[in-house]
Amino acid sequence: MNRPDPTAAAGAGTDPAPSVGPAAIRAAMERIKHDVRRTPLWRLPGAALGVPCAEVWLKLEHMQLGGSFKARGMFNRLRSHRLPAAGVVIASGGNAGIAAALAARALGARCEVFVPETTPPSKRHRLLDAGARMTVGGATYAEAFEACLDRQIATGALLMHAYDQPEVIAGAGTLAMEIEAEAGVPDRVLVSVGGGGLIAGVAAWFEGCTRVESMEPERAPTLHSALQRGEPVDVEVGGIAADSLGARHIGRLAWPICRQHVVASYLLPEDLIAAAQQRLWQELRLAVEPGAALPMAALWARAVELAPDERVAVVLCGANFDPAALA
Amino acid sequence: MNRPDPTAAAGAGTDPAPSVGPAAIRAAMERIKHDVRRTPLWRLPGAALGVPCAEVWLKLEHMQLGGSFKARGMFNRLRSHRLPAAGVVIASGGNAGIAAALAARALGARCEVFVPETTPPSKRHRLLDAGARMTVGGATYAEAFEACLDRQIATGALLMHAYDQPEVIAGAGTLAMEIEAEAGVPDRVLVSVGGGGLIAGVAAWFEGCTRVESMEPERAPTLHSALQRGEPVDVEVGGIAADSLGARHIGRLAWPICRQHVVASYLLPEDLIAAAQQRLWQELRLAVEPGAALPMAALWARAVELAPDERVAVVLCGANFDPAALA
Repeated sequence: MNRPDPTAAAGAGTDPAPSVGPAAIRAAMERIKHDVRRTPLWRLPGAALGVPCAEVWLKLEHMQLGGSFKARGMFNRLRSHRLPAAGVVIASGGNAGIAAALAARALGARCEVFVPETTPPSKRHRLLDAGARMTVGGATYAEAFEACLDRQIATGALLMHAYDQPEVIAGAGTLAMEIEAEAGVPDRVLVSVGGGGLIAGVAAWFEGCTRVESMEPERAPTLHSALQRGEPVDVEVGGIAADSLGARHIGRLAWPICRQHVVASYLLPEDLIAAAQQRLWQELRLAVEPGAALPMAALWARAVELAPDERVAVVLCGANFDPAALA
Repeated sequence: MNRPDPTAAAGAGTDPAPSVGPAAIRAAMERIKHDVRRTPLWRLPGAALGVPCAEVWLKLEHMQLGGSFKARGMFNRLRSHRLPAAGVVIASGGNAGIAAALAARALGARCEVFVPETTPPSKRHRLLDAGARMTVGGATYAEAFEACLDRQIATGALLMHAYDQPEVIAGAGTLAMEIEAEAGVPDRVLVSVGGGGLIAGVAAWFEGCTRVESMEPERAPTLHSALQRGEPVDVEVGGIAADSLGARHIGRLAWPICRQHVVASYLLPEDLIAAAQQRLWQELRLAVEPGAALPMAALWARAVELAPDERVAVVLCGANFDPAALA
């Protein structure tokens, strides 16, 4: 696809200007380009993957510093603020906390991470390895977030949000900027969704010039439910990808961007997610966490209707898990 | 580095013409380009990996079809011959057998693989999954090879060699051709060595226009010993990488190419190989088998003396192992 003429869009919509757009994403890239890795984009013929389209572009973002895309947003937020002596605090299921801890360490700041009880040992170990102080803040991410807010008020630390801050979304959007710089605009991009920070960044970059589609577990239908209802809604979350995609509520900043630009949302059952994670290892030697396997689960299940000449971009967004799960 | 003027080299040496050169490798690429994957070349600043040079180029060849570089040579040999009704036979520690089985299946031929007792369960399962008939042919690769030869004589099957056939070396060389096509000629290439098929292919492609250096386990010093002695020599083999690098004798065809073009050979101890395999997972989420970890083991151990402005290419050559080893 080609980007539309930007002048043609002027005044076309009635939505308020989105909080994050290409300019913010370009600025984020300038800020973080020496901090994070430019991850590979692996372009394969669809046939090589058993997918009926021309090409699948695998963005290997699970190889990012800290093992997920989160480093992009965390570095962007840290580099956008003067760091208080109390350092930074964040509530996170794991991936954002690991990234925040690595970013804080790189910039010489302290980092405290509030995790829910669902955070698995593999992510807890990585948090500690990254130098974070870790506190279990409750049964769910929402409770951990409350505990984190209390600490922020008490200490004056910089509050980092796992997905719902402009710098975090713009940082995530740099991943889409890399895809376009390397291969052009794909015909479709498939993105796993938890709180919506990643898909909002991707959608904000492409601004409607490609189809951005969301992938969620049936057991964590955060964006899907909001799109169906026409407004954000609290959902129950659980299942094998809850540690990375288990936000109960779509992000306040992500929501208007997703409402405007996410053209389809898919829900994947547990067994297809688990099978895709195994198949990514067996056929491609890509070791990713369950939350990163959803787009390929959808493609392999033929859930997405593809044109034969399409080039589909897929984001593999994280690999903070115990690889013994693949044995 | 730049390639030298080819006319300047005419008549310069007294060595016989090598059995495999760029023309054979280009022909191999034409033959196999729709069969195998073009694997990613991940270019990172040396500093991002803790390596004191300008760039490290990771050729992610462990993501090749069949989980190792071997698919290139196997498809090239199969596509160069009329396939007999008896199919193909090969002796292999695992990786070449897996690749031969996949290539044979793709071309509608039968495949029998003779493995030594040292072949681990993870490779045996993959052989069977790839549709091979598997026979344990003795304690060592050499014994498995004898059993394989007997079968070939009895059945008239096409004999595939894990590393010592021109088509196999030329196929492996296509990997180097891809590196150059994508990023130019690196200043140095580090390659793990078992029987020498891969490094011979790489060296045959670059023809002396970059430093090609060999990496072997201390416990399987096949090429290192030959280079020291000035002629091929039988060595004892063992250790954690023996299932992929455990050839007792350098390949008959690889030897003259290696003698001419491999400018340095390194031996790595077991503990550094194991540590590098772990570190590739912990820091980069690259899950590779021990035999693929040697070049990074050498770089991380500062065993290779690097210039600050160097661009070093590293081949990650295989990932047929049980990822529980990384847990």
